[in-house]
Amino acid sequence: MPIRNIAIGRPEEATHPDTLKAGLAEFISTLIFVFAGSGSGIAYNKLTDNGAATPAGLISASIAHAFALFVAVSVGANISGGHVNPAVTFGAFVGGNITLLRGIVYVIAQLLGSIVASLLLAFVTASPVPAFGLSAGVGVGNALVLEIVMTFGLVYTVYATAVDPKKGNLGIIAPIAIGFIVGANILLGGAFSGAAMNPAVTFGPAVVSWTWTNHWIYWAGPLIGGGIAGLIYEVVFISHTHEQLPSTDY
Amino acid sequence: MPIRNIAIGRPEEATHPDTLKAGLAEFISTLIFVFAGSGSGIAYNKLTDNGAATPAGLISASIAHAFALFVAVSVGANISGGHVNPAVTFGAFVGGNITLLRGIVYVIAQLLGSIVASLLLAFVTASPVPAFGLSAGVGVGNALVLEIVMTFGLVYTVYATAVDPKKGNLGIIAPIAIGFIVGANILLGGAFSGAAMNPAVTFGPAVVSWTWTNHWIYWAGPLIGGGIAGLIYEVVFISHTHEQLPSTDY
Amino acid sequence: MPIRNIAIGRPEEATHPDTLKAGLAEFISTLIFVFAGSGSGIAYNKLTDNGAATPAGLISASIAHAFALFVAVSVGANISGGHVNPAVTFGAFVGGNITLLRGIVYVIAQLLGSIVASLLLAFVTASPVPAFGLSAGVGVGNALVLEIVMTFGLVYTVYATAVDPKKGNLGIIAPIAIGFIVGANILLGGAFSGAAMNPAVTFGPAVVSWTWTNHWIYWAGPLIGGGIAGLIYEVVFISHTHEQLPSTDY
Amino acid sequence: MPIRNIAIGRPEEATHPDTLKAGLAEFISTLIFVFAGSGSGIAYNKLTDNGAATPAGLISASIAHAFALFVAVSVGANISGGHVNPAVTFGAFVGGNITLLRGIVYVIAQLLGSIVASLLLAFVTASPVPAFGLSAGVGVGNALVLEIVMTFGLVYTVYATAVDPKKGNLGIIAPIAIGFIVGANILLGGAFSGAAMNPAVTFGPAVVSWTWTNHWIYWAGPLIGGGIAGLIYEVVFISHTHEQLPSTDY
Repeated sequence: MPIRNIAIGRPEEATHPDTLKAGLAEFISTLIFVFAGSGSGIAYNKLTDNGAATPAGLISASIAHAFALFVAVSVGANISGGHVNPAVTFGAFVGGNITLLRGIVYVIAQLLGSIVASLLLAFVTASPVPAFGLSAGVGVGNALVLEIVMTFGLVYTVYATAVDPKKGNLGIIAPIAIGFIVGANILLGGAFSGAAMNPAVTFGPAVVSWTWTNHWIYWAGPLIGGGIAGLIYEVVFISHTHEQLPSTDY
Repeated sequence: MPIRNIAIGRPEEATHPDTLKAGLAEFISTLIFVFAGSGSGIAYNKLTDNGAATPAGLISASIAHAFALFVAVSVGANISGGHVNPAVTFGAFVGGNITLLRGIVYVIAQLLGSIVASLLLAFVTASPVPAFGLSAGVGVGNALVLEIVMTFGLVYTVYATAVDPKKGNLGIIAPIAIGFIVGANILLGGAFSGAAMNPAVTFGPAVVSWTWTNHWIYWAGPLIGGGIAGLIYEVVFISHTHEQLPSTDY
Repeated sequence: MPIRNIAIGRPEEATHPDTLKAGLAEFISTLIFVFAGSGSGIAYNKLTDNGAATPAGLISASIAHAFALFVAVSVGANISGGHVNPAVTFGAFVGGNITLLRGIVYVIAQLLGSIVASLLLAFVTASPVPAFGLSAGVGVGNALVLEIVMTFGLVYTVYATAVDPKKGNLGIIAPIAIGFIVGANILLGGAFSGAAMNPAVTFGPAVVSWTWTNHWIYWAGPLIGGGIAGLIYEVVFISHTHEQLPSTDY
Repeated sequence: MPIRNIAIGRPEEATHPDTLKAGLAEFISTLIFVFAGSGSGIAYNKLTDNGAATPAGLISASIAHAFALFVAVSVGANISGGHVNPAVTFGAFVGGNITLLRGIVYVIAQLLGSIVASLLLAFVTASPVPAFGLSAGVGVGNALVLEIVMTFGLVYTVYATAVDPKKGNLGIIAPIAIGFIVGANILLGGAFSGAAMNPAVTFGPAVVSWTWTNHWIYWAGPLIGGGIAGLIYEVVFISHTHEQLPSTDY
């Protein structure tokens, strides 16, 4: 079998201090990311009196998310790996790079971080926190494929720059690359699906605004895209290398 | 006791050549940062004839501060550590990473750098230097919490990428991360509290324009947020590691 | 002879697993790059109702391409070298840094990546994918020289930061430099020739929209500019160094 | 004497292959930088029909110069040191880090690079290349001090991140810092003096448009600011370290 075994993890792992600490790091990273990212959208709404999206609005969202995700990944990198995204955690799980139990702790922490960020945003801005949704004329199928392709690019980037054991010096700029591919994709997807590429990013605002229309797209798209990326990268670009080494475990 | 002892420092430290040199570095770094950062706001006012804030204005402020803070931290990094911010210095003090006396020298240097930058701006632009203030509809409580959360993110970033002994290669891109989290937060907070995250940044313009309305928010918010970040990061993510080492000093 | 021999490569090289894997990496990198880059133009058209280009539109295109190309180069760097561009592959070939056969595999993969990205864009945005073309008042000669000079800068950057054996630590930030020179040039060339600097970037949209007016410019300009850059850099800045070493192979 | 001796250089140095190669590198780097930087201004004029400067225009100029200077410094770094600016060369000379003869070769190469870039821009855009000048209401004294302070920050950045022997890992991100401080300052100075911080950047457009009004400001300001930065950094932050080493040469 060419890919590493998918591991469930020992039950005590979920309450191990290191796992909890990693969970706290994911919580704080996601909070920082969603606070600036979703917050930039609230600021845009305030400055334009809830005006329609413009190229300047997309640029603002792009920079806010690119910069904040780069930072959120950086500050978590040495503690939790800086996933900040259930699609990244799922992609890591599919490729055999995180156990199921630890992954569940991560996702719960990410969702909580997004909820707390959204609650804080609602308070400090005294404004509604807008939920993600499809722009006029965008069908469910279009948005789903869009989120799949964009998240494929994101998780592929995570694998190539941060997970791949051959990454070398690329690892130094990995957090920048991970943040910036999201920033680039927002300049496209922001006008169509909102460009989440991350279920946690949409979950907090959905809870706080209690808006669930098409919410499943922001889970299905990123998980499918992230899963495919993790699988392809692991099978084609990582595992093959393993086969060249003397090995008895498969 | 899990965290390192808070140190006051020996009295001669404040006049030690290394401390004075570090103070000069903080002075110059803060001058460079405030000159470009606050200057970008004056340029915006000139180009728009003191028009209302727009998304383009927020983007301009974001980029100016992100780029200039990244540089200000970089150029000070090897001399003073590149704090450029009393909230960072306070967060470092709370976590036991700078002595009280050296910290006071830093803060005085930062405030002087901001005042000189503001005076230079007033001369070269022949325009008023605008003080920070709350946007219409923003309450004191909202702005205070906003500054707390944003500065928490900033000082947490400083700790994770520059202070943490386990930072490794993250230290290489630390100045970029520190600058860019401020840039990201401005795209949110610039529309509400002005997004200072730094008492020195607001102090110089306040002195030169002699505007003190709500000025305390820009001290209280950043110092609370920075102090919490320093404490949490030191206790949870740094000190715990120390406990694993043989140790007799606590 | 001062430059290294131009190599054709052994016939079996084209189907060697490493070459095919590198081709797949080029395909995915180019797909990610064109998806975000060309996609940002479609988003602009949607938000402005196909309005004329504005400075904000150029900034959006610049950031989308700068960020996405930086990432596309990064994720391919350790597998294929991250060319993502037939002009880069041609520049590498001219300087003797890739064989003809391997280069052909790369270019085919890049063109396929661009076509698939364009097809995906057409589906997810339910909008036409705009082909590159000359702005009003721009002559063929102007656009050709513009593409030559811009691509010269791009491939010169690739050589200085990624190919040059003396590059040292520059290699760490090479992908950022390669992405950002394209971002900078778009703020100029986007208003005149569209600023492709890359035949693959224009080929996919040309196929999908079946628009071939002046398409040859986007091949001739980048290949000439990239070829000159590869030749000059190799002869002046790389090979001369070789001559100083004892050598018997030329 | 605390600073290193200012060296004139041996006469044969100016024609030494290494010096000529470094000159060629400065020529190409400056050409790449001015082509994108000044070109972005021409594109703005085309898109807005020579409209007045706006915040979006300043952002465009900021990004174009930040990205292009970062790249221009990178591609020259290992060959010439990547000065791309007579004020940087002068600051290096004042601090004793380049000989007079080599410095003259650099400056001539930089001026030629800017002229050729401006001629190419005039051809490819079929538009006038705008010379730098003072905005309405900006006095000569204001602009001079503005250019002095901004260039002080730029050359101080060059010293702290690229020249200082204690720079360590900062050297890796030095080209980004050097580019981005120019990008930050443009968001201020672009609305007042044009924010050159570099005599070469203004010289090419001045020659091609034959406009010399206030041109001296763009030499005096950057040379004064760069000279002060080189002197202060060398004396305070570099030479003092030398004194601590056993030494007989002063």
